Amino acid sequence: MDECIFCKIIKGDIPCHKVYESSIVLAFLDINPVQEGHVLIVPKKHNDYIFDLSNKDYTELLLEAKKLSGPLKKATGAKRIGLAIEGFAVPHIHIHLIPLYAGNQLNPLMAKPGDPEQLVKVADKIKEQLK
Amino acid sequence: MDECIFCKIIKGDIPCHKVYESSIVLAFLDINPVQEGHVLIVPKKHNDYIFDLSNKDYTELLLEAKKLSGPLKKATGAKRIGLAIEGFAVPHIHIHLIPLYAGNQLNPLMAKPGDPEQLVKVADKIKEQLK
Repeated sequence: MDECIFCKIIKGDIPCHKVYESSIVLAFLDINPVQEGHVLIVPKKHNDYIFDLSNKDYTELLLEAKKLSGPLKKATGAKRIGLAIEGFAVPHIHIHLIPLYAGNQLNPLMAKPGDPEQLVKVADKIKEQLK
Repeated sequence: MDECIFCKIIKGDIPCHKVYESSIVLAFLDINPVQEGHVLIVPKKHNDYIFDLSNKDYTELLLEAKKLSGPLKKATGAKRIGLAIEGFAVPHIHIHLIPLYAGNQLNPLMAKPGDPEQLVKVADKIKEQLK
């Protein structure tokens, strides 16, 4: 979609802190992380609501989240990786993968602008684990 | 596990507001809902961390969430169903399905004890949609 910010990021018209790419998704850092290392996984095909996907597309997308969770946990040293799907901010499916250290951190209201230099460092650490 | 509250609920030793059951999961209302109609989907087999599951078990579990999302959306009139996996409160995998009406509602800190009578009514509404 022409006006969709995630479609623009996927096309390369808007830069992002990319950590991973496959034939079906692009994964990049949320620039307003809830926790450091907060990643968004975005399917390349525009769709608004994850539960509208076919079972096959839904499953493939969520397996990408599983694939990323291990390297993300290692890169950040988090106790576990939380997963959240909300979808009100941008009408293009995005899975939040959020490194967690304790309960109640999976909270969208905790999002704060990330320091640009720190975002670059964190993206590099995650990419290193994905090699 | 003997001491796990969700295992006790699955065995029937502790009551719950059940909305759905299959061979692999039990789904019931969170008694401290973030939003009315907040459902927990719990695999019957005890495991702590969702990303430790095999791809097959992970996929089957998440397809149960997809299956429930439509009836839950109809029963509550929500704009969309949010999904969250955190796992600090109880060390047994549980998927939160949360009816959402606007952004920033997928927030664990918004959880409040539900009114017992209202929980019964809401469970009935969801079960009606699942018939």
